[in-house]
Amino acid sequence: MKVKLISHTPSPEKLCGSAASVAYSEEGFEANYDKNDDSAQKILNHCVKSGHHSITEHASFTFSVEGISRACSHQLVRHRLASYTQQSQRYVRFDELAFVTPPKIRKNNEHEELFKETMQQLSDNYKKLLDAGVPAEDARYIYPNAAKTNLAVTMNARELMHFFSLRCCERAQWEIRELADMMLREVLKAAPILFCKSGPNCYSKGVCTEGKFTCGRMDEIREKYEKIHSK
Amino acid sequence: MKVKLISHTPSPEKLCGSAASVAYSEEGFEANYDKNDDSAQKILNHCVKSGHHSITEHASFTFSVEGISRACSHQLVRHRLASYTQQSQRYVRFDELAFVTPPKIRKNNEHEELFKETMQQLSDNYKKLLDAGVPAEDARYIYPNAAKTNLAVTMNARELMHFFSLRCCERAQWEIRELADMMLREVLKAAPILFCKSGPNCYSKGVCTEGKFTCGRMDEIREKYEKIHSK
Amino acid sequence: MKVKLISHTPSPEKLCGSAASVAYSEEGFEANYDKNDDSAQKILNHCVKSGHHSITEHASFTFSVEGISRACSHQLVRHRLASYTQQSQRYVRFDELAFVTPPKIRKNNEHEELFKETMQQLSDNYKKLLDAGVPAEDARYIYPNAAKTNLAVTMNARELMHFFSLRCCERAQWEIRELADMMLREVLKAAPILFCKSGPNCYSKGVCTEGKFTCGRMDEIREKYEKIHSK
Amino acid sequence: MKVKLISHTPSPEKLCGSAASVAYSEEGFEANYDKNDDSAQKILNHCVKSGHHSITEHASFTFSVEGISRACSHQLVRHRLASYTQQSQRYVRFDELAFVTPPKIRKNNEHEELFKETMQQLSDNYKKLLDAGVPAEDARYIYPNAAKTNLAVTMNARELMHFFSLRCCERAQWEIRELADMMLREVLKAAPILFCKSGPNCYSKGVCTEGKFTCGRMDEIREKYEKIHSK
Repeated sequence: MKVKLISHTPSPEKLCGSAASVAYSEEGFEANYDKNDDSAQKILNHCVKSGHHSITEHASFTFSVEGISRACSHQLVRHRLASYTQQSQRYVRFDELAFVTPPKIRKNNEHEELFKETMQQLSDNYKKLLDAGVPAEDARYIYPNAAKTNLAVTMNARELMHFFSLRCCERAQWEIRELADMMLREVLKAAPILFCKSGPNCYSKGVCTEGKFTCGRMDEIREKYEKIHSK
Repeated sequence: MKVKLISHTPSPEKLCGSAASVAYSEEGFEANYDKNDDSAQKILNHCVKSGHHSITEHASFTFSVEGISRACSHQLVRHRLASYTQQSQRYVRFDELAFVTPPKIRKNNEHEELFKETMQQLSDNYKKLLDAGVPAEDARYIYPNAAKTNLAVTMNARELMHFFSLRCCERAQWEIRELADMMLREVLKAAPILFCKSGPNCYSKGVCTEGKFTCGRMDEIREKYEKIHSK
Repeated sequence: MKVKLISHTPSPEKLCGSAASVAYSEEGFEANYDKNDDSAQKILNHCVKSGHHSITEHASFTFSVEGISRACSHQLVRHRLASYTQQSQRYVRFDELAFVTPPKIRKNNEHEELFKETMQQLSDNYKKLLDAGVPAEDARYIYPNAAKTNLAVTMNARELMHFFSLRCCERAQWEIRELADMMLREVLKAAPILFCKSGPNCYSKGVCTEGKFTCGRMDEIREKYEKIHSK
Repeated sequence: MKVKLISHTPSPEKLCGSAASVAYSEEGFEANYDKNDDSAQKILNHCVKSGHHSITEHASFTFSVEGISRACSHQLVRHRLASYTQQSQRYVRFDELAFVTPPKIRKNNEHEELFKETMQQLSDNYKKLLDAGVPAEDARYIYPNAAKTNLAVTMNARELMHFFSLRCCERAQWEIRELADMMLREVLKAAPILFCKSGPNCYSKGVCTEGKFTCGRMDEIREKYEKIHSK
């Protein structure tokens, strides 16, 4: 998996902070935006911490996501307040099946062997069908959930915070959690105040919201996200 | 594939038509709703035909979709103005792989044989992994795009019209087109005026919007949708 | 203000509960929907209480809202995951200005007098402009925020829960809070399990999320919503 | 009215064009983004002209909108796929009522006089209420639709195109049409290819979609937008 923040709204924190000022000020957005950054950051900080997140929608972040499985992308695109462009298995004909191996399969040689053999056979059979004239859009029906895919993903800061709260949680599936962690690391470089509380609920809200499904390792998880944030 | 309209807003056409009246009337929605249905239908008819579709959002339709492939469901959930609950491959452990065979593979014995064998092997290997203690959420990485899935799908009438315009088109992939056709047949029984123009753009707008990618069979396609609508 | 639930998805709790089953079951939605209602209610109850709200999107509720001010409607339509049809001040020519008087103005005779006189003058001047040939869409520029308006409003259960959490809160403006309370009373009759936790955060989550802006009257507010729910 | 594009996704056309490549390429987004700009522009051009607009969602544009009327802002915020922060009449106490005068009122001295007097009186009465201790959130009920307001507005390119198609049309209300024209002029400077077809449907699609409500001045309107685009 490779995740890179390709682009984002310039000075996202200044933008969101000064947008927030519009609500409370006789002056307009432009005048507020042209003031020094300190006041914008102060307001932003207040908004993020007190849960007034609507102003963070003004900042948009676009990622390159490469080499996640189609199992993971199927989950990812369920986040509806976002924009996706995904590599098409209808239009791209693949030479070789690139695939993701789950860690729990990787850690056992026998399982990994069976998994790899299966992948190899799928790759071969896919090519056989293509060579026999079957269209890629039909041959791909034998391609597995493990097949790698690429996406361009755009979310605004508010949706990202929501995404992190759900997908950084230990209860999330391991692959999308890994993706969420990598996206979080990327945006923290670009907008540390915007995402200063971002992570699973046990980190950002200080409480586990999973009820009886809790992972029970809140202290450990919080420490993990404190580390991510302190870098 | 099995598609059934499980539930919908009662009297959807009366509801949308009288909602439209709210915009132009001194009276409120309730008074307009309590009038006889004829005026609501007349207004609705006018709105649908002249493209004032916002009022059709008030009517909601909920479908059971069973036995589509995960290739198809991955496309389906890209429609973001809708609500989905999908069978989870993380939580459901499957006894036998149920799968969709593309028609172009089905029509050639050799291809179909290869396809079936592959499916059987995936089913077996999935079970081997499960039996060896691999969690279902990881074992499913070898499950194919062809694997069958079930969903509950809710869309409002406006989104459905948009969905039909894209997915009934010959340029859409065959499986989601089949799904769209079946959903269209279902809603036509419940709300013939709301969906009186629904279908691919060549049917609903009278023009192909696919440019050089046109299927070139507009007359034939229109006839198909005229038949669907005349039932 | 007059608020009435005009229509909603039939058996909304059975629908949402059986939709939830789709995720965890080998069977499809239809089979789950056709089972007895008890299991659906049990699952729904669990989902609502543990915050798994996505399944509640399948149920849609349509209201007639009459006689709220344009100040209030401007706030209302900021909820974007909803559908609105609003009485148009461009197309409707009003005989007399109907208006909302804020309670804090009503309780002081002098203030109320000034308010009423102002409204009367606006009504007169609006008519003068209309009579002089000014289009309604321009004459209405002198109409006040207090002017009454009517809407048809559709929200799904998930958005309604979110709406209640924000707008039933004492920190919300009095008129939209009144509207939210009336909508809550309406949906509780139709779907008591779906909305069993609905109200401001101090009621539904047991904690105030307003920080230093707290109303400080949590006990009183909770009691108010316990009463609403016990009816 | 003052409209300024405050910020936007950097290199929006390169971003959208290379995002489009992700669908058709074995390579990921990053590699496509790092290629020379020509190919991205070519692909973007093709997508915009053939109506494949989903890829334009990756580019986000943030505006300062100052001094529009609350009549206009109430229409503006009905566009739900956008983010707004609006000056609050609950929190801001106004010294003097700033207001918008409709052109059709401005062009007749008598009407304008009546309009101005009314505004002055509203301004005075608002202040009387404030001075008497009425909260701003209640005093504003006498403020008119004409009252000026400020907003921060963020839309992605796809939503902007849709906004322009509706709001640049002669059938739109004059004030929001003026706003749309000013926003169009702003984004054309930043992304001329993205918005090369933007304007009312008669300009962008070459056909009027208003049916019997057509303004009947298609040639004139098209010429207007050709001028805007040629600058």
